[in-house]
Amino acid sequence: MKVITSIREMTRFSENLRCQGRTIAFVPTMGYLHEGHLALMAEGKTKADHLVVSIFVNPAQFGPSEDFSTYPRAMEQDLEQCRTIGADTVFTPDSDIYPAGFQTYVELEKLPLHLCGLSRPVFFKGVATVVTKLFNIVNPHFALFGEKDYQQLAIIRQLVIDLNFDITVVGVPIVREPDGLAKSSRNKYLTQKERPHALLLYRSIQAAEKMVKDGEIDAQKIVDAATEILLSCPDITVDYVSICDPVTLDGVTSIQGKVLMAVAVWLGKTRLIDNRMLVVPHTPE
Amino acid sequence: MKVITSIREMTRFSENLRCQGRTIAFVPTMGYLHEGHLALMAEGKTKADHLVVSIFVNPAQFGPSEDFSTYPRAMEQDLEQCRTIGADTVFTPDSDIYPAGFQTYVELEKLPLHLCGLSRPVFFKGVATVVTKLFNIVNPHFALFGEKDYQQLAIIRQLVIDLNFDITVVGVPIVREPDGLAKSSRNKYLTQKERPHALLLYRSIQAAEKMVKDGEIDAQKIVDAATEILLSCPDITVDYVSICDPVTLDGVTSIQGKVLMAVAVWLGKTRLIDNRMLVVPHTPE
Repeated sequence: MKVITSIREMTRFSENLRCQGRTIAFVPTMGYLHEGHLALMAEGKTKADHLVVSIFVNPAQFGPSEDFSTYPRAMEQDLEQCRTIGADTVFTPDSDIYPAGFQTYVELEKLPLHLCGLSRPVFFKGVATVVTKLFNIVNPHFALFGEKDYQQLAIIRQLVIDLNFDITVVGVPIVREPDGLAKSSRNKYLTQKERPHALLLYRSIQAAEKMVKDGEIDAQKIVDAATEILLSCPDITVDYVSICDPVTLDGVTSIQGKVLMAVAVWLGKTRLIDNRMLVVPHTPE
Repeated sequence: MKVITSIREMTRFSENLRCQGRTIAFVPTMGYLHEGHLALMAEGKTKADHLVVSIFVNPAQFGPSEDFSTYPRAMEQDLEQCRTIGADTVFTPDSDIYPAGFQTYVELEKLPLHLCGLSRPVFFKGVATVVTKLFNIVNPHFALFGEKDYQQLAIIRQLVIDLNFDITVVGVPIVREPDGLAKSSRNKYLTQKERPHALLLYRSIQAAEKMVKDGEIDAQKIVDAATEILLSCPDITVDYVSICDPVTLDGVTSIQGKVLMAVAVWLGKTRLIDNRMLVVPHTPE
């Protein structure tokens, strides 16, 4: 496995691969890898000849009050996991991703005005910008993103169309702990006492799913029931419980066809998100 | 000469060229080509094996009160000029550059807050966005821009660094009419009565240049003298006369080393710009 730290070397290396007719799959990460990331990598390996994984904790996507400085890092462990799963190249750029004088940002006008974008105003600007940069550096044929960060995936899909990147974006299903908690690097923050309560996100989504299966189509009723489940734990603060269009992320009032159910909470000091597609039975997808 | 209208075909064509080891020079234009564009093309031909010229009047860089609908167009004539100068490929994308749902924009935080950016608030956002798109589609080794649009050139240089485009940006000197008026597609708008007055831009710059040569280092005095020359024509409204740092475009009060002198006026209904580098004599550059 090759480890590249220089932007210039990564660019040259990718161009050489492409000109040898080899295809590149790319998994951008912020490290502290878990089974969710490994699922992206495994899927990437089925898509292309060469798998590039980047590890870079992107300061531009953290707000001033957020956890950039404490975000968990474990480079040696991450490299070992990449090696084990068979990544071909790991790109770990140095701090020169944002050199002095940096001032160019990529922003979407509509998709960030929903869900996580409302409570994390700089987040998607930072994500869109760093992904644009990484796409230019790595120049992959395929880029893989987890469905856990559903809004991020929707934004990247739109960005790729809008900025004419010649890249196929692949969404990969959420990987869960045995009890159902969605895998996340931030789960590490949870105390032993908090960990069982974290399961309420998944429980609230399962409850919503059951309501839809049982014929409920009033989105507000489902949101209210899910919120009640979340608030059964006094340590949880709800950021949002949303039922929305899976492409535009606009809220829906009456559920038809396929809609996205997405939740975000604070559990103590830890922000957790989860989502699932709700499908009305007997409705053509 | 090849004419490509499809985005996908242009992307494939460029990738093939690159993989054959051929280098690509790119001149993005809005058409209505004049000698200024031809100078960019001629320079491009010296830089690379293959010259791609794009012709696309970019709606995103025109404000609602600006001249998008009346901007001069002459596709047949433009293609003939490209053929004569020896362009290899002309890319004339259809309207699918901004498909339904388009919402992703590239913006710089500082450089547009000067000069033309102040009176044309959407202009550089539109330029940065379309150039990012065209760079992704054409994927050139070199991109050529005229120094006449100095602020645009400065913005593209910064954008290329910030978004990690593997492209060398080349600035090409202003081409002038025999009497000194900078070549511009918008010169076509000038009436026979206005045309002689358009020369006042260049006169004001020449006067500034002479003042600096004669030892004046007070920027305000030079700006005042240049403004007086411009306002000697009652049909001229001054947008700005600026003496500024050539990299940051921040205004300077005392001239040292090399500074940019830039002017923009309305002459009747036509907006005209011009600029020149002023160099203090006997100062090491």
